[in-house]
Amino acid sequence: MAAEPIRADAVLIVHGTDREGIVSKVTALLAAHGANIVALDQYSSDAAGGDFYQRTEIHLPDFAAKRSALEADLDRVVKGELGLQWRLSDTSVPKRVAILASASDNTLLDLLWRQRRGEIPMTVPMVISNHTTVADDVRHLGIPFFHVPSVPGPDKSASEQEILKLLKGNVDLVVLARYMQILSDSFIAEVGVPIINIHHSFLPAFIGAGPYRRAKERGVKLVGATAHYVTADLDEGPIIEQDIVRVSHKDTVEELTRKGADVERQVLSRAVLWHCQDRVIRTPHNSTVVF
Amino acid sequence: MAAEPIRADAVLIVHGTDREGIVSKVTALLAAHGANIVALDQYSSDAAGGDFYQRTEIHLPDFAAKRSALEADLDRVVKGELGLQWRLSDTSVPKRVAILASASDNTLLDLLWRQRRGEIPMTVPMVISNHTTVADDVRHLGIPFFHVPSVPGPDKSASEQEILKLLKGNVDLVVLARYMQILSDSFIAEVGVPIINIHHSFLPAFIGAGPYRRAKERGVKLVGATAHYVTADLDEGPIIEQDIVRVSHKDTVEELTRKGADVERQVLSRAVLWHCQDRVIRTPHNSTVVF
Amino acid sequence: MAAEPIRADAVLIVHGTDREGIVSKVTALLAAHGANIVALDQYSSDAAGGDFYQRTEIHLPDFAAKRSALEADLDRVVKGELGLQWRLSDTSVPKRVAILASASDNTLLDLLWRQRRGEIPMTVPMVISNHTTVADDVRHLGIPFFHVPSVPGPDKSASEQEILKLLKGNVDLVVLARYMQILSDSFIAEVGVPIINIHHSFLPAFIGAGPYRRAKERGVKLVGATAHYVTADLDEGPIIEQDIVRVSHKDTVEELTRKGADVERQVLSRAVLWHCQDRVIRTPHNSTVVF
Amino acid sequence: MAAEPIRADAVLIVHGTDREGIVSKVTALLAAHGANIVALDQYSSDAAGGDFYQRTEIHLPDFAAKRSALEADLDRVVKGELGLQWRLSDTSVPKRVAILASASDNTLLDLLWRQRRGEIPMTVPMVISNHTTVADDVRHLGIPFFHVPSVPGPDKSASEQEILKLLKGNVDLVVLARYMQILSDSFIAEVGVPIINIHHSFLPAFIGAGPYRRAKERGVKLVGATAHYVTADLDEGPIIEQDIVRVSHKDTVEELTRKGADVERQVLSRAVLWHCQDRVIRTPHNSTVVF
Repeated sequence: MAAEPIRADAVLIVHGTDREGIVSKVTALLAAHGANIVALDQYSSDAAGGDFYQRTEIHLPDFAAKRSALEADLDRVVKGELGLQWRLSDTSVPKRVAILASASDNTLLDLLWRQRRGEIPMTVPMVISNHTTVADDVRHLGIPFFHVPSVPGPDKSASEQEILKLLKGNVDLVVLARYMQILSDSFIAEVGVPIINIHHSFLPAFIGAGPYRRAKERGVKLVGATAHYVTADLDEGPIIEQDIVRVSHKDTVEELTRKGADVERQVLSRAVLWHCQDRVIRTPHNSTVVF
Repeated sequence: MAAEPIRADAVLIVHGTDREGIVSKVTALLAAHGANIVALDQYSSDAAGGDFYQRTEIHLPDFAAKRSALEADLDRVVKGELGLQWRLSDTSVPKRVAILASASDNTLLDLLWRQRRGEIPMTVPMVISNHTTVADDVRHLGIPFFHVPSVPGPDKSASEQEILKLLKGNVDLVVLARYMQILSDSFIAEVGVPIINIHHSFLPAFIGAGPYRRAKERGVKLVGATAHYVTADLDEGPIIEQDIVRVSHKDTVEELTRKGADVERQVLSRAVLWHCQDRVIRTPHNSTVVF
Repeated sequence: MAAEPIRADAVLIVHGTDREGIVSKVTALLAAHGANIVALDQYSSDAAGGDFYQRTEIHLPDFAAKRSALEADLDRVVKGELGLQWRLSDTSVPKRVAILASASDNTLLDLLWRQRRGEIPMTVPMVISNHTTVADDVRHLGIPFFHVPSVPGPDKSASEQEILKLLKGNVDLVVLARYMQILSDSFIAEVGVPIINIHHSFLPAFIGAGPYRRAKERGVKLVGATAHYVTADLDEGPIIEQDIVRVSHKDTVEELTRKGADVERQVLSRAVLWHCQDRVIRTPHNSTVVF
Repeated sequence: MAAEPIRADAVLIVHGTDREGIVSKVTALLAAHGANIVALDQYSSDAAGGDFYQRTEIHLPDFAAKRSALEADLDRVVKGELGLQWRLSDTSVPKRVAILASASDNTLLDLLWRQRRGEIPMTVPMVISNHTTVADDVRHLGIPFFHVPSVPGPDKSASEQEILKLLKGNVDLVVLARYMQILSDSFIAEVGVPIINIHHSFLPAFIGAGPYRRAKERGVKLVGATAHYVTADLDEGPIIEQDIVRVSHKDTVEELTRKGADVERQVLSRAVLWHCQDRVIRTPHNSTVVF
């Protein structure tokens, strides 16, 4: 399949405290710069005085040449006058995504194949794993692989420092593709880019280890998966996407794991796709707006 | 359950041929009238020069008093200057919905109960049926019931005229809740309001009669339902919503019918809800935009 | 819709500790009594020595006349020789189902309409509520309504005794259709028939009160419902059925509640249907086998 | 993920014209050979005199040694006395599956990765394609790749003969993973093993070419995929599995294609899994029973 044709040249995200007239001012600014609006989604959490979120896809030929003037105006009006945050993305520049993996190839290879097929607007400058199991598959796809072994014991700082050195300045997003190591708060703070994790459960059910075994014990009729941004609280970060699959009494823990793996791939790939399309905005309330 | 709190005072729909600066002009106009935008969805079919669709929920206290001035400006700017169509709905005024039914209570009662629970912003000034089977249930819910028998033979004009007389001026929407009579082109033209039909199939599969029997014969693993606006071409009007349910070899035609009935209720109620919330815009290409 | 044609005359459930040759002995016994097997589902939890579950639909004309001889043999062979539990249901005799409701008509009316349409093989000899809100609707459908007010304070014994007196001997199943009172352990023990509850959440997420508010706070992208048998541990009984619906940041708590109500109806009606069709077997491990 | 533990040693399929006592005789025969029944599914199309289908998973240590005696008895009783067809599969012997592909790696690689992860009990002795695009990926996974170019023009006999020579005697199943060539009736007859195809549409909607383009034109809200056995009538063979995904007006044809590709992978992999687990029985009515 050929890559999806780019309909828009850029995506503008604006969010912050709501007040009257934001959409009008932002879209007037865009129009003044010659941009046609291809799609616009806006949402306020309350009728007045709540949180404001806006995503705008714009058609603006010669975007690269016009970008700095537009950004200067956005800074002046959106940040200065309206007191809002904004970010502008060039849709012709794919996000640079590092994938941290363990020994499992499940979600890792799914993401790499989707990238190769052009399904997700991203490049993958590196895969980092504390195992070497997936090295051959990753390199076969032309992607650099780095092995950073886990240091036994509670002090992860040495391996985390090595990972940070690889990542810093080189990536826009980190994806934990069933990376089984808990990241320290300082790592999360220092890495400077968002981190997306896949949790093999329909959160908040079965938080923590062994979700499929515990799902079997509880006799559930559905199992699920949750993709979320990583915060200092493990498995408690803002949810981006969730989905489920139907199971029955006949399914063993292994079968639940297999069915769950399918959902994990679907859910993680959708979360990464939407992030790379600049569809996801984090709210101040540990949740997300997905446009 | 209490009715959903109204977040917005009005909904504005704008659509037509795309050109630069529409969103900006429309939202500036709204801001000039003191309206805060609670939610806005906009979509253009092409990067430039395609079809333009915009739905805006606005917070505007004292809307009734301010409406005519706003409408005058919309006429001047949106219609006059921009050459677009617009409509403005007061969210405190529920849509008036007539339901045409046959002997089946399936989707009919589901809609009436949802209306009573406040789930759909509509009133139901009348139910019309060519049978009397459902009269008692309908009147028990406090809703007027009119019996208009079907005239045998191809000439439906007498009964259609009687139905038209009941509807004209009294309703904003007609819902065919498994109404088994084919409406004439002249009826569709004269009634002057949209008509929504539920088709007991996942269109375009199994168009026409006996879909569950034919689904059984084909050995399908899913059956579905489709809600669409009625046009002169039977079962070919713009689709609003579709859904499916999983079936198996064990299901008889009766069981398929029962499972299908569940999906029909879900699909029709969602289509009516979205229409009554002014979320559905018809395109010039026999399809819908659902915001 | 006409009632589903009865394919089988009786359903036989057999379960207990697995051993070799059970299916063969049971089916030979059925054949010896002239029964043709229309459908048979069997499942063992382990390759050898686990739990054994079998559901068999049989075609046996003149079942009423032949029943006692068949039962005597089942007692002798299945219970006596094989040490298993069995139960035999006449499919021409619908289950007698009492519904306990509160002020909400949501799942209650859905069940009553399905009963009237012949979708569920049950009669409803009574609806009991601690409110009178639903009395008129219930009686309009020709079903007896009993008002048993809740006694304030922790001692529920008076009202529970009154409910027990109404139920004892008259029903085969009790359904809690959003009945908001917690039943005492002694009530559950004394009532002598299974009790099915609908929990407005995808268990084990959001156990207890306010699930939709808490789902909104957690920013989930799905909400669900769970139907389960009632045991002494609140919300911890064996799960019969679960399902979910997709939600987004735009959904208010009220909207989550409305979408959740749809799923609750679907899930509860499926659980009651399957129970009344003798498809559900409770395991010794707080779970169910659903054939 | 480790391979799913084999619960049963063998699977027995029995089907044909229904008569009284089949289950009893078959299970008595199994018991006489020392087999414990782990799971049994049986279904008759009518209460009496219809079609009979039975799938039985048996636990029988030393199956290989006991197999021929069991088969002799099955031939004598099931075929001879009861006039039914039967087949017995050793679950420790994976099915040998050839995949025919074109230039697309979409469903092909998904199947190969699932095979490698042990999710499907199959080996893949060869991939055959009329393109060379996928050769490198296939061989990287350690699987033989054969290039058989398509001969232009209507006469496919030369390339089909070459493919037949590769397949004959070497495979138990052929999977068309978006193989875009129409197979001749003689090929289907000669190959001697079942062929599974994935159709990128929810059959019977959009039969034939360009389904996603036509789905876009019709404005559908769902797209789907269908896996079916191949018969002489293109796209009309018995359906094994179907599924759908939700789409909207925002989705371009390319986006529909991408979403559809996800469903195609899911549907095809489930169909192949179920076939390899001997869960699928073809009926005389161009449909399937899936246990």
